[in-house]
Amino acid sequence: MIKITLPDGTIKEYSKGSTPMDVAKSISEGLARNVISAKFNDTIVETVTPLNEDGSLTLYTWNNDEGKKAFWHSSSHIVAQALEELFPGAKLTIGPAIENGFYYDVDFGEHTVSEKDFPSIEKRALEIARGKHDFKMHPVSKAEALEKYKSQGNEFKVELIENLEDGTITFCDHDTFTDLCRGGHIPNTGIVKAIKILSVAGAYWRGDENKKQLTRVYGISFPKQKELTEYLQLLEEAKQRDHRKLGKELELFAFSQKVGQGLPLWLPKGAALRERLEDFLKKAQKKAGYEMVVTPHIGQKELYVTSGHYAKYGEDSFQPIHTPKNGEEFLLKPMNCPHHCEIYNTKPFSYKELPKRYAEFGTVYRYEQSGELHGLTRVRGFTQDDAHIFCTPEQLDEEFKKVIDLSLYVLGSLGFENFKAQVSVRDLDNPDKYIGSVENWEKAENAIINAAKEKGLDYVIESGEAAFYGPKLDFMVKDALGRNWQLGTIQVDYNLPERFDLTYKGSDNELHRPVMIHRAPFGSMERFIALLLEHTGGNFPLWLIPEQAIILPVSEKHEKYAEKVLNSLENNEIRALIDNRNETVGKKIREAEMGKTPFMLIVGESEEEHNTIAIRRHGGEDLGSISVQDFVDLVTKEINSTLKSF
Amino acid sequence: MIKITLPDGTIKEYSKGSTPMDVAKSISEGLARNVISAKFNDTIVETVTPLNEDGSLTLYTWNNDEGKKAFWHSSSHIVAQALEELFPGAKLTIGPAIENGFYYDVDFGEHTVSEKDFPSIEKRALEIARGKHDFKMHPVSKAEALEKYKSQGNEFKVELIENLEDGTITFCDHDTFTDLCRGGHIPNTGIVKAIKILSVAGAYWRGDENKKQLTRVYGISFPKQKELTEYLQLLEEAKQRDHRKLGKELELFAFSQKVGQGLPLWLPKGAALRERLEDFLKKAQKKAGYEMVVTPHIGQKELYVTSGHYAKYGEDSFQPIHTPKNGEEFLLKPMNCPHHCEIYNTKPFSYKELPKRYAEFGTVYRYEQSGELHGLTRVRGFTQDDAHIFCTPEQLDEEFKKVIDLSLYVLGSLGFENFKAQVSVRDLDNPDKYIGSVENWEKAENAIINAAKEKGLDYVIESGEAAFYGPKLDFMVKDALGRNWQLGTIQVDYNLPERFDLTYKGSDNELHRPVMIHRAPFGSMERFIALLLEHTGGNFPLWLIPEQAIILPVSEKHEKYAEKVLNSLENNEIRALIDNRNETVGKKIREAEMGKTPFMLIVGESEEEHNTIAIRRHGGEDLGSISVQDFVDLVTKEINSTLKSF
Repeated sequence: MIKITLPDGTIKEYSKGSTPMDVAKSISEGLARNVISAKFNDTIVETVTPLNEDGSLTLYTWNNDEGKKAFWHSSSHIVAQALEELFPGAKLTIGPAIENGFYYDVDFGEHTVSEKDFPSIEKRALEIARGKHDFKMHPVSKAEALEKYKSQGNEFKVELIENLEDGTITFCDHDTFTDLCRGGHIPNTGIVKAIKILSVAGAYWRGDENKKQLTRVYGISFPKQKELTEYLQLLEEAKQRDHRKLGKELELFAFSQKVGQGLPLWLPKGAALRERLEDFLKKAQKKAGYEMVVTPHIGQKELYVTSGHYAKYGEDSFQPIHTPKNGEEFLLKPMNCPHHCEIYNTKPFSYKELPKRYAEFGTVYRYEQSGELHGLTRVRGFTQDDAHIFCTPEQLDEEFKKVIDLSLYVLGSLGFENFKAQVSVRDLDNPDKYIGSVENWEKAENAIINAAKEKGLDYVIESGEAAFYGPKLDFMVKDALGRNWQLGTIQVDYNLPERFDLTYKGSDNELHRPVMIHRAPFGSMERFIALLLEHTGGNFPLWLIPEQAIILPVSEKHEKYAEKVLNSLENNEIRALIDNRNETVGKKIREAEMGKTPFMLIVGESEEEHNTIAIRRHGGEDLGSISVQDFVDLVTKEINSTLKSF
Repeated sequence: MIKITLPDGTIKEYSKGSTPMDVAKSISEGLARNVISAKFNDTIVETVTPLNEDGSLTLYTWNNDEGKKAFWHSSSHIVAQALEELFPGAKLTIGPAIENGFYYDVDFGEHTVSEKDFPSIEKRALEIARGKHDFKMHPVSKAEALEKYKSQGNEFKVELIENLEDGTITFCDHDTFTDLCRGGHIPNTGIVKAIKILSVAGAYWRGDENKKQLTRVYGISFPKQKELTEYLQLLEEAKQRDHRKLGKELELFAFSQKVGQGLPLWLPKGAALRERLEDFLKKAQKKAGYEMVVTPHIGQKELYVTSGHYAKYGEDSFQPIHTPKNGEEFLLKPMNCPHHCEIYNTKPFSYKELPKRYAEFGTVYRYEQSGELHGLTRVRGFTQDDAHIFCTPEQLDEEFKKVIDLSLYVLGSLGFENFKAQVSVRDLDNPDKYIGSVENWEKAENAIINAAKEKGLDYVIESGEAAFYGPKLDFMVKDALGRNWQLGTIQVDYNLPERFDLTYKGSDNELHRPVMIHRAPFGSMERFIALLLEHTGGNFPLWLIPEQAIILPVSEKHEKYAEKVLNSLENNEIRALIDNRNETVGKKIREAEMGKTPFMLIVGESEEEHNTIAIRRHGGEDLGSISVQDFVDLVTKEINSTLKSF
């Protein structure tokens, strides 16, 4: 008999050689029906893998990330079989599960695979799935494995096998298909009820652009047809809300070949939006006792040698900037903290003067490979809504709570209600990985956890996820389409104060080391605006949108009245414009709809006569003709419902 | 006889061999007494140089820059004689006049010259001056010249002479002293009535740090003792107002060895000041129809190849930033215009949509040698209050006038009343130097001159000073100490629209080239703030200063009332702070005086009882106890007297 420990801590005995599926059956019929993958002592196993020793077992269903991974990885086997059948001579390489679905990289030889082939691939893959073939793993010798793929002329699999050790190599069979595979499958193909091929793209063998270009076939699969339909709807909606598409339509930002990839140019409307966001945060930060600073975008190499960043990232970053004379070396700043440490160091502080909270909308530059760049979410230059708090260890608790307050205020004002916090703490088994005293770490971790608790955050604690320099809390936001984004971060840092020899004079008249908190509620302006675009579909909160209303005079005759209206609105701090181009009102409305202006104010004969404005809401709702004051009240009320004062 | 043309155009006849002094005497006794230098046909000559041909003659007195130059250069001969006598074995090198005074670079051998030697140098120099020795130029052969300095062991003069051509070498004698010299002296040493040695500094021979380090002795001299006294007072005042000193005292900015020289760190108070200046300009710019944009601080090398900047400045600039892979090359942006051209190029424009006015507080980086760096006025990174206007040639006139309006508004609001404009136009003799059609140049030059005239500017036209790409107008500001600063510039540009292939669709439906205006009313935030510090001595205009008032409760008991006062002030948009540190009111007042806070509001027993505040103005004036409302009125009135709305 062997002892199996289940996730809830219960220990059950099973006869040696029992499988995860046997364990599932012993728990409940329902679980047995749904279990599709398992983990035994930190290793993913098949549901049919015999368990021969004591250990911990976790069972996975479709509802777990690990379950989905097995499901999609298994689906890639099914699709690979279909591809091999439909495109004779195709050489398979690797086919992993990814965040949403799976892909398989294939050398199709003379064939070209395109969208028009997707239906036949899907059809054949589904036929295979319906055959309910079991996935069966079995070990092979290296010689045998090489023999199989050499005879097929598949140099890719041969290369993979050559790097494996004899005795560790396994194949997985289902139906007539066999693939080199480490394992992690669902019980049988029949569980896959819906398969969709999503796209094809070029991909280099082993990601190396000097090697052969393969075709990457992306797909996704589900245990129910309905789930596929819903997913495709979500995908379509996401496409409509893609920030790159909306950014272009709303003229927020652009990229230029000449300026360089990954370096956004903020167009007037985007720059105005950014500025409003910055002003909003500045105002709250001022109330919270932050002070703005401004620092340069470069620093001497020595600055980053001191901070430790150069040793860690130097080689993979934008390379040093040399001067034409005297051999000085500068680096584009990849973060603002070293500069802020140097500001702290410009004068001595007493404990009475702490905390110091230095904030900066600091633009930083980080090298990303061109293939990794994506709209505003993965760029080479971005502006962090950065701040560094220098405080005494005694103040850490209070400061951390204040930062959470600010972060919650930011999220709430921008309409994010669905978020979680992740608290990353030490790996207690590896104390040597971390800088700073155990006492300080305990203090800091407790400070974060207490703060999260006290502020009522929905949080999880991740052991071993802390940076070497301190624990942290990250906000994970779910957007309107249910997608997760990592947003603002709050990090405690014991390292930089040490490296920059930061001190303050304590009440004991001795010099002490301050603690540092790094924080950025938005994360970066670029990433946040991308998220906001995709979350709101471009319909920004009313308080934020640079152009809240557009006034449309029915004819030239009413321009004077339009200006009078504009004036009243401006006096009431409503941001509006007049569209007095020589176009029809219909066209102007269509364009204002495209531009997502929240309110269209139409003024004509009747409005001028009654001193009113005819209000049309973005989306088409007709709010009738009302007085300017009523409109102001309406706007104010709506703004006050989202934007509280901090 | 020869014909001499005088500056007023009159032509007079003199016998051949007459000297400039003879000409002066023929005009008036007074002129003859004051003339100290002369220019004959574009060459500086001595007042005793015989004139042997027809030509134009300009006579200079102390009141001309050229006169001062001869005066100070001659004084350097006198000081050199004193140095040679006082420090036997000292080797003289070169001794030119500079903007204020002169210097002489000397190899003092075993001697060290320091401040304590200044009185004896001054004393001996003045003795020599009083000897009324004539300056006498005479030609020497190269062999003779070399002989003199070789025998003295002066390798510096030898090197200078070796680079000269035989037949062009002259010496200048006075008293017992002889120096290698090209000329440009006053008649005799007796005209110099006051001499001051100002400082000594290290200087490399020929400015090359691989060569020998010499001692540079700085001095200044005047024709009257009174003028020296005034100059020294001005110098002392300037020292007190030195922006580097004030910047430190007021905690506005700092430099860090680690971040790098010439890269200012803006501390909280400085950053707040900058932000207020930026907000002030933003507000005016918004009214003037500008749109803010944001662009990255780097651009691909290709961007600057396109703009032409790389070919022109590439080698002397910060060198390209390489990527770790794929061989991409970026440059720190030395200006914002190429980025703004790329923004213009993101979409097609019709003439109806022009002008487009893109503004950005754009931080740029330019390499300066470390020896050239100076506080905030000569830095390696600075933020331009930049904007680029893209307009049709027909709109240029109007746009230029609008830019002048904005510039005048900026200068006026910041208390600069003493300024001139310099209009730089083509050199009509060298039409090939310029890009763009003659027609457009005429249009642009006329536009600028008309605008300057119409706006009532005090302007001068400088032929041949235009850039190759277009004419420009610069504002020259005189500060409170009478020193000239070049401030904002307005430039017309036909070049970049060509290079970036910018177009708009005209009313004829054809594509046309827009004209571009570059402009920056402040010039740069760094330079402008430096100027503002030196002009105001740190007493910024009330509307600008981040902290307008500081509330000083007499004791802890009155803190509540102080907060009530603060609240009322904030509601009236007056920026104030409470100083509730545990210090005496006397100490708090002294510190507020140091910090140049305009108003100190003292609140104690009597104030709380009568609901008033006791007002002390920076500098010590007691304004008595008044109500908060009266104080608000006082502040508002003062602000409105300088800051009008645009």
